[in-house]
Amino acid sequence: MSSASVREILSGRVAAGTAVTVQGWIKTRRDSKAGLSFLAVSDGSCQDNIQVVAPNTLDNYDTEVLKLTSGCAVRCSGKLVASQGKGQGMEIEGAKVEVVGWVDDPETYPIQPKPHTMEFLREVAHLRPRTNTFGAVARIRHTIAQAIHRYFHEREFFWVNTPIVTASDCEGAGQMFRVSTLDMLNLPRTDKGGIDWSKDFFGKEAYLTVSGQLAVEGYCLALSKVYTFGPTFRAENSNTTRHLAEFWMIEPEIAFADLNDDANLAEDFLKYIFNAVLNERGDDMKFIADRVEKSAITRLEKFISAPFERIDYTQAIDILKKAPKKFDYPVEWGNDLQTEHERYLAEEHIGRPVVVMNYPEQIKSFYMRLNDDEKTVAAMDVLAPGIGEIIGGSQREERLDYLDRRIQQFGLNPDSYQWYRDFRRYGTVPHAGFGLGFERLVVYVCGLTNIRDAIPYPRTPGHAEF
Amino acid sequence: MSSASVREILSGRVAAGTAVTVQGWIKTRRDSKAGLSFLAVSDGSCQDNIQVVAPNTLDNYDTEVLKLTSGCAVRCSGKLVASQGKGQGMEIEGAKVEVVGWVDDPETYPIQPKPHTMEFLREVAHLRPRTNTFGAVARIRHTIAQAIHRYFHEREFFWVNTPIVTASDCEGAGQMFRVSTLDMLNLPRTDKGGIDWSKDFFGKEAYLTVSGQLAVEGYCLALSKVYTFGPTFRAENSNTTRHLAEFWMIEPEIAFADLNDDANLAEDFLKYIFNAVLNERGDDMKFIADRVEKSAITRLEKFISAPFERIDYTQAIDILKKAPKKFDYPVEWGNDLQTEHERYLAEEHIGRPVVVMNYPEQIKSFYMRLNDDEKTVAAMDVLAPGIGEIIGGSQREERLDYLDRRIQQFGLNPDSYQWYRDFRRYGTVPHAGFGLGFERLVVYVCGLTNIRDAIPYPRTPGHAEF
Repeated sequence: MSSASVREILSGRVAAGTAVTVQGWIKTRRDSKAGLSFLAVSDGSCQDNIQVVAPNTLDNYDTEVLKLTSGCAVRCSGKLVASQGKGQGMEIEGAKVEVVGWVDDPETYPIQPKPHTMEFLREVAHLRPRTNTFGAVARIRHTIAQAIHRYFHEREFFWVNTPIVTASDCEGAGQMFRVSTLDMLNLPRTDKGGIDWSKDFFGKEAYLTVSGQLAVEGYCLALSKVYTFGPTFRAENSNTTRHLAEFWMIEPEIAFADLNDDANLAEDFLKYIFNAVLNERGDDMKFIADRVEKSAITRLEKFISAPFERIDYTQAIDILKKAPKKFDYPVEWGNDLQTEHERYLAEEHIGRPVVVMNYPEQIKSFYMRLNDDEKTVAAMDVLAPGIGEIIGGSQREERLDYLDRRIQQFGLNPDSYQWYRDFRRYGTVPHAGFGLGFERLVVYVCGLTNIRDAIPYPRTPGHAEF
Repeated sequence: MSSASVREILSGRVAAGTAVTVQGWIKTRRDSKAGLSFLAVSDGSCQDNIQVVAPNTLDNYDTEVLKLTSGCAVRCSGKLVASQGKGQGMEIEGAKVEVVGWVDDPETYPIQPKPHTMEFLREVAHLRPRTNTFGAVARIRHTIAQAIHRYFHEREFFWVNTPIVTASDCEGAGQMFRVSTLDMLNLPRTDKGGIDWSKDFFGKEAYLTVSGQLAVEGYCLALSKVYTFGPTFRAENSNTTRHLAEFWMIEPEIAFADLNDDANLAEDFLKYIFNAVLNERGDDMKFIADRVEKSAITRLEKFISAPFERIDYTQAIDILKKAPKKFDYPVEWGNDLQTEHERYLAEEHIGRPVVVMNYPEQIKSFYMRLNDDEKTVAAMDVLAPGIGEIIGGSQREERLDYLDRRIQQFGLNPDSYQWYRDFRRYGTVPHAGFGLGFERLVVYVCGLTNIRDAIPYPRTPGHAEF
């Protein structure tokens, strides 16, 4: 008697006629007049359930089988046979149904076998992975994460886990969370009345990182190809469906590389990830396309099928100025592109992903490489239909004198960047990289409309759950 | 002219006679009287360097090649030939050596081509990946991380990224870091003089997680096999070489499983990881064995070769009481095992890894399953020669009435655990899991003596770097 996952069984790896045991949870129970109960059992290994046919000859048929409700845990043993119902699936002729865990008060169990709103499911986040939708999201999220690691590993990149608690605001990217063990009711003070941070855990002010990029550059300039994949934090009080205070970022960094290499990597990377999802999560993607977002599969296929367009920021401004469309935000050389502009470019004008390159220097970060025109920097954004900006990257300023000028121009404290300057003093090389949010990818692939549905335990703003 | 990594070239994937370009950094330069310079070039893709032979007929031989020092960045093109020197390696007959980045003031460059102390290298953490030792550590760390993800993926586990910022102290495991955006100089107060946390970012007190286990259980009870791999935090002011305030944890959780299944998983998992390192990082492990820890390879081979021993805690106490050895800490049923006890068991008494099972209930966490004797819980520790405890795990208490008793016994607030109780109310099943520290694995594999050398940017206690 072999125990097998539902995925193994449904994929045909277990021969018909084999005696099998499956363990999982009841999705639905249906009783026929012929004295059979049909149990749809899920173990979460895939989207589809296995059907277990339990005859009324079972000892516990009346006392237990007929009382099974959605969510009950069972262990079912029987013979695997070709299903007599619709399709050519396999089912288990149930010789034995053992109830492992009942559902306490089935009437009030939050996960009923019926559609629930996403809002409701966010309130029972600890139970929502039991639904078809969030089972699919969890498996797809896993598949994306695996594909990310695999993509880089196969190409000789090394994963670097850069510090989460940090004393530096890496790129001035928004407000940071403070990390402290001081007793807030008895804060140590300096002579001048400020907080005496030397008494705090790290002996200085400490924050949650907003990006691992600057730190990972040091590894890039030793190992050539590296990436981060870890959590980052932004304390922006933006109550939107597109922002999270805590999110995972992927940040590859490549040495001996310029902005074109960076754009090549971004394109190849995204296509690899989407391909992996389509290949490895067919059942979940079909469910998503049927129930969540009709275009979920076709838009990934389209994304993969054609080369990305590449245009300069300056060209993009020209296109937008000539667009037969009114925008809410003004189109002006020197302004950053807004989501409406990005979506127009990718969706309407070009009709496929586009890399916009070489942005005005004053709207981009200090570490980006100044172009020869001294007006633009070697920055890029990848814009995609249906989501807008999905990747932001740049070639880094590898020339010390230029970097120093930029540090001064941005009003940063050069003392805080001595270690970063060292990378330019010792064997500097052209290098480039990009960053993208893991949850943005999940949202896009799963056709979600609220980014809080892309994380295992959603937080509403102003509320840290669990 | 193909550009290739040093790893590709040295692995024999590029045929002799091929024109190649390598890009990397000078490790050493040696000049022969015959008018040749031998450049050892590393791009960090592997431990070994490629030798580039630069003849004095190069245009820039006197002006540049002879001025190259350790750390300079170069691009070298030439023909790949079998090395005439020691061994059968490949080398590049240098037709062209282009200097990409000089080393500013070579005399004071911290990474000289000579041995450095670990203490010194911790002070220049941003440059230490350029050394042979920390290059090896970085590549091995990557290989371990990849092997972890691959191990679980191949066995149908799903990765779940549990919350980093949390409102609950998951297992009471030591002091937590507070996360806040409040202005410390103007803290909002309640009527009663306390801090008004409702004004903070999350509307309540928030902390950095100490473990993802409780949260991941919810996914286990829907997807059957899951794991976390992410950062966790402990604000313990332990200035030791074995503790970090910030470290990455791996926490698998399996449904329909008991303590024996858990021990099986732990053993299989560790052996897989060590096997992967030996297979995939031969050159780095050889370096580690030559320069850092002589037994690095043999102890992993030994670890893999035999089944783990399994004993009960009660047996372990008997063994320790009869040991022909004096311990600093008393051996008494009901006390936790100390490192000296653990190492005696694994190293001297048994001589290979041992799983100690079924600990006294009062020294273990509230969520562990009470055994029928009502004196012990289904907890286990994996102890290994050379490191002591490497994994801690347990079968979880899946019975609601028992869990409620334990919550009360431990003085915990039941209201904070309603969501966790739900897992026992709705389709509960026996389940088990374990946790292990990623950096402990790195320390063990790389033969390091200070855990701060297992992370990319080391922190000394009381000091958050970068």
